[in-house]
Amino acid sequence: MNKMIDLRSDTVTTPPQAMLKEILTANLGDDIMGEDSTVNELEKQAAELLGMEDALLLTSGTMANQVALMTFCQRGEEVIMGKESHIYNLEGAATSAVAQVQIKTVQVDNGVYDLKEIEKNINIGDIQRAKTSLISLENTYNLNAGQIIPMDNLKEIKLLANKYEIPIYMDGARLFNASIELGISPADICKEVDAVQFCLTKGLAAPIGSILAGSKEFIDKARFNKQRLGGGMRQAGIIAAPAIYALNHMIDRLKDDNDRADWLAQKISDIPHFKIETGGMRTNIVSPIITHDQTDSLQLINYLLEEGIKVKNIAEKQVRMIVHYQIEQEELNRIISALENFSSTL
Amino acid sequence: MNKMIDLRSDTVTTPPQAMLKEILTANLGDDIMGEDSTVNELEKQAAELLGMEDALLLTSGTMANQVALMTFCQRGEEVIMGKESHIYNLEGAATSAVAQVQIKTVQVDNGVYDLKEIEKNINIGDIQRAKTSLISLENTYNLNAGQIIPMDNLKEIKLLANKYEIPIYMDGARLFNASIELGISPADICKEVDAVQFCLTKGLAAPIGSILAGSKEFIDKARFNKQRLGGGMRQAGIIAAPAIYALNHMIDRLKDDNDRADWLAQKISDIPHFKIETGGMRTNIVSPIITHDQTDSLQLINYLLEEGIKVKNIAEKQVRMIVHYQIEQEELNRIISALENFSSTL
Amino acid sequence: MNKMIDLRSDTVTTPPQAMLKEILTANLGDDIMGEDSTVNELEKQAAELLGMEDALLLTSGTMANQVALMTFCQRGEEVIMGKESHIYNLEGAATSAVAQVQIKTVQVDNGVYDLKEIEKNINIGDIQRAKTSLISLENTYNLNAGQIIPMDNLKEIKLLANKYEIPIYMDGARLFNASIELGISPADICKEVDAVQFCLTKGLAAPIGSILAGSKEFIDKARFNKQRLGGGMRQAGIIAAPAIYALNHMIDRLKDDNDRADWLAQKISDIPHFKIETGGMRTNIVSPIITHDQTDSLQLINYLLEEGIKVKNIAEKQVRMIVHYQIEQEELNRIISALENFSSTL
Amino acid sequence: MNKMIDLRSDTVTTPPQAMLKEILTANLGDDIMGEDSTVNELEKQAAELLGMEDALLLTSGTMANQVALMTFCQRGEEVIMGKESHIYNLEGAATSAVAQVQIKTVQVDNGVYDLKEIEKNINIGDIQRAKTSLISLENTYNLNAGQIIPMDNLKEIKLLANKYEIPIYMDGARLFNASIELGISPADICKEVDAVQFCLTKGLAAPIGSILAGSKEFIDKARFNKQRLGGGMRQAGIIAAPAIYALNHMIDRLKDDNDRADWLAQKISDIPHFKIETGGMRTNIVSPIITHDQTDSLQLINYLLEEGIKVKNIAEKQVRMIVHYQIEQEELNRIISALENFSSTL
Repeated sequence: MNKMIDLRSDTVTTPPQAMLKEILTANLGDDIMGEDSTVNELEKQAAELLGMEDALLLTSGTMANQVALMTFCQRGEEVIMGKESHIYNLEGAATSAVAQVQIKTVQVDNGVYDLKEIEKNINIGDIQRAKTSLISLENTYNLNAGQIIPMDNLKEIKLLANKYEIPIYMDGARLFNASIELGISPADICKEVDAVQFCLTKGLAAPIGSILAGSKEFIDKARFNKQRLGGGMRQAGIIAAPAIYALNHMIDRLKDDNDRADWLAQKISDIPHFKIETGGMRTNIVSPIITHDQTDSLQLINYLLEEGIKVKNIAEKQVRMIVHYQIEQEELNRIISALENFSSTL
Repeated sequence: MNKMIDLRSDTVTTPPQAMLKEILTANLGDDIMGEDSTVNELEKQAAELLGMEDALLLTSGTMANQVALMTFCQRGEEVIMGKESHIYNLEGAATSAVAQVQIKTVQVDNGVYDLKEIEKNINIGDIQRAKTSLISLENTYNLNAGQIIPMDNLKEIKLLANKYEIPIYMDGARLFNASIELGISPADICKEVDAVQFCLTKGLAAPIGSILAGSKEFIDKARFNKQRLGGGMRQAGIIAAPAIYALNHMIDRLKDDNDRADWLAQKISDIPHFKIETGGMRTNIVSPIITHDQTDSLQLINYLLEEGIKVKNIAEKQVRMIVHYQIEQEELNRIISALENFSSTL
Repeated sequence: MNKMIDLRSDTVTTPPQAMLKEILTANLGDDIMGEDSTVNELEKQAAELLGMEDALLLTSGTMANQVALMTFCQRGEEVIMGKESHIYNLEGAATSAVAQVQIKTVQVDNGVYDLKEIEKNINIGDIQRAKTSLISLENTYNLNAGQIIPMDNLKEIKLLANKYEIPIYMDGARLFNASIELGISPADICKEVDAVQFCLTKGLAAPIGSILAGSKEFIDKARFNKQRLGGGMRQAGIIAAPAIYALNHMIDRLKDDNDRADWLAQKISDIPHFKIETGGMRTNIVSPIITHDQTDSLQLINYLLEEGIKVKNIAEKQVRMIVHYQIEQEELNRIISALENFSSTL
Repeated sequence: MNKMIDLRSDTVTTPPQAMLKEILTANLGDDIMGEDSTVNELEKQAAELLGMEDALLLTSGTMANQVALMTFCQRGEEVIMGKESHIYNLEGAATSAVAQVQIKTVQVDNGVYDLKEIEKNINIGDIQRAKTSLISLENTYNLNAGQIIPMDNLKEIKLLANKYEIPIYMDGARLFNASIELGISPADICKEVDAVQFCLTKGLAAPIGSILAGSKEFIDKARFNKQRLGGGMRQAGIIAAPAIYALNHMIDRLKDDNDRADWLAQKISDIPHFKIETGGMRTNIVSPIITHDQTDSLQLINYLLEEGIKVKNIAEKQVRMIVHYQIEQEELNRIISALENFSSTL
């Protein structure tokens, strides 16, 4: 039997053996005391890659995001973000329970943030209104679409933020899928924002971790907030060692993921009873819509499962497929065949 | 010189002398010990009026709203409400700093809540999503429109809420403006919700206070949350005595406010360069839009101020006027004249 | 039948009629808009009395205390206070749910704060320790003892606080009982602290309210925090008018309360089976301890209740009596007789 | 040159190579989806070891402790714990910023909790007092003493907690140092409590992680709270694999650490100018007090550092030494020599 093809997410990637082996030879120390040199090396390398002063290793994107909110904002301030943001929808309402900020949402179409809506939502603060203390972007935007924020849009947002002296944070969980697609360095994107995080566990295939980067002062405060949330680790080099490998070996190859996702989307759009949303610059996420009246996501998912293919249910008539390094071309062919067969039975 | 005509809000109403005099003869006691009989009488009377088991006097609508959120929800749960709700926009982000709930917003058109959007926003809770624990309505909706939630819409929301076993709270700051306009009792509205608050200080003209009402168990918990926020008062009968007067003498006359607001809206809609939004059942709030290219709210407000008329700036080209018991017909005539004169200069 | 003698607290005081009458002629306005001139006058007068730049009217001492904590401290910082402080014991754990600060407690003996223990508890902050951002004193200390903080102790604490650049807050619920006993102005005490609150409802006999005072910047922030907790009121002049009367007529007479409490304590100490704790400068609170084996507070309380006397149960063998303006000398005699009779039955 | 002898903490232990190698062959999966079988195996094994229904892997003891507080308590409730507890002193005031509970402290002498003081601090809750919802013990107690809670004391606390229906949590960061010393199974200790955590990173020498264990319902809720704090990890098997090795190979040998610490303490007590506190059952922590007038911890620490020995500064005249698996007998001899030399220079 063939191995299972798992397209539910790029978080399911398991580390290549060469990456794991880095753990055995890593220098380890007590990271809470600042003495794990492998962690220190990772943080230094990541900061340089992003063009930021300093960086911090955290256990997850959720922790990086919440720590960023806590570090930029005092309790009870407002943050503007896209309505479909991960922070607002998939972090257990931590914005209210942990970071304690009120979210004002704006529309994002094809990765383009509505500038007027952002400005309309900015409060300078008065007796009845909390002030806006952060604009939080997501790049690529929206875990079911993976659209890149155009650099023009990003620069406009930066100008607006400067006007009101509001910092910008970027949840760049899949930042490198964006930079590689744009053909620019991650630092070129990051110079438009005040802080950024990216995930080591998605396309980069490291087992655990996210990197938060920003100014030295920001990271110092973030380190305290991380510790307070229980994110402090001892011999964290066992997370940092594969992460360094990921930075060195897994970024450039993300172009392949984007390209194969594009190939997959094109192929699916030719299959009857399926529709692919286009618009914006897309990366490694493909979310086909079922257009046939008599079937739905659950039927499709069950059909694919029997074919050895896992996809994610994201709406009554829509599923998500994320392309990653463990999906090979031959497997993409199998997926297309399976979808064609499913379509032909309708 | 004429007295200033203040239409900025019905919160500016000062109490009639007869109402204030009630304070001098009120029985007073220590309300934190439950021994102020005037407060006890007010809470009993208010509960009956709303058809609820129990009621609680609080210092403000903001406190009533936040205490309601804290009492229905645990920290870090989600609440669904209209995008223009007072709770979300004019309470200093207390949803995040005090009640600690995450707000999901829905569209409300002419007082009608979008049922599908409510349902789409309901989370039953999973590892990444906090559960929805409250639907929070506002009636009349939106402090710049004053629209009544149609009873049909309210009943549909109730059915939906029952299906998911989610309680409904109603911020009824101007509840009586709605009930009087619908020609039904406040209790008829409140039987569709689990708890409700109304303000004593708006159209009812009492100096201070709001009433929160619900089940006995709910109010017991709310009383603790009120005390914890510092809302406990000692001889609170000096607030309750005028409030009882307000319940007895100021509710029925709200129909006049609604009617005169309607008259005002009709008259303004006939003045060139002004537009009045219609749609829905409206109450005592009139928010004219300036349609002329060469002027704006600030110019209008300054013009009116020189005429002895205060209105509230709510947008670049829109002002708000709220009709209340201290605005007389002769004053409404003066307002229309002033607007006509302003219009004629354009 | 004689009227009930209520010694449970000075919060039970009902306002004299002359005080209440001030409400009828007070200028009222919308205080949230800053337009209630009676409130503005009270805040100005109170600030001057305390030698502070600005002051703010709040509904309760609990709100004043919590707003002070929220204004001095960011979430998650530490506050040092006496172990028996009201803030720590009788405010519904609002330190954790509302102000969100961690309390470190120190011993206070006869109103004297242990300086070494304060210093030992000061954290400057590191990766595992939140910094100490406030020292919170209570004067008079401890609602069951009413002891004055000696000025020498206060000055020493101030020097220590200055050394670590930590502000000092004073919960002066019964501040004037202290200043009048010391024979100095309240401002003389307050110049040793950065902010202070006092209650209008205790010995001063106003129906509702507390005053928080400090620097202009502090009060501006506190005003926002008050509003966010729902403490904003509309025609708050009905609270401010009796409060102004209280400041003008009720402070000087507190010496009588202190003196009569002293008389009461001396008399009780002569009654067999009762003991009075001495030590420190005491004010208007007397908390006799029952020394007899065969009886306890509940028996005493029930006995006194039948004699028309209410006292407060504070421990298995201890009750509290607070002397206030509505307790007359003839009533004190009745209390002594009742205690003597109770004692003789043992 | 000899390798540095690091006695500052047992958190500095680096994993033995055999432990690390487990990572290379571990089955990995997405743990947030519940699909990392190595994590699942660790959690099952740990639950059995502790005699609990279920267990959860977290990144740190701090996270385990805070998640436990959040899971047992609603915001604004009270928790009773020892005054020197790690949770109260070394977790960045997370009790107020994250778990949002108010701590009431009790005295613990030689590992024995004062039962009367616990009972005195229990609140059943009223209008001004938040209820006590947890008793939080630490075993071994106090990171500078390492004393075992006697089983008799633990059973008495359990009876008291049962009487008030309050659950008991145990911060068992060094639980196995206690059980091995008592000669009983960890489950024998844990049956007296409702939930417990232990650290994998201290004496057990695993690189990262703590285990929280309790009822199935408790762990389900805790898993959500962990995720909300950002503690969710993807291929967490790289943490779990060495942890399983630690459970299998590192527990029994803790007796050696305890014994060598005892040897060290005895030897130091014979050196002039040093004093060792005795009392209670001690484990792997030795905190010598300097009794000589003319020197202090800083001088001692600097002296030892030049000898290649690191100890921790815990007070002006006291340092801490923790014995762990990477400290060999020959090194203990060197430590004693160094202390003797230091002593002889005084």
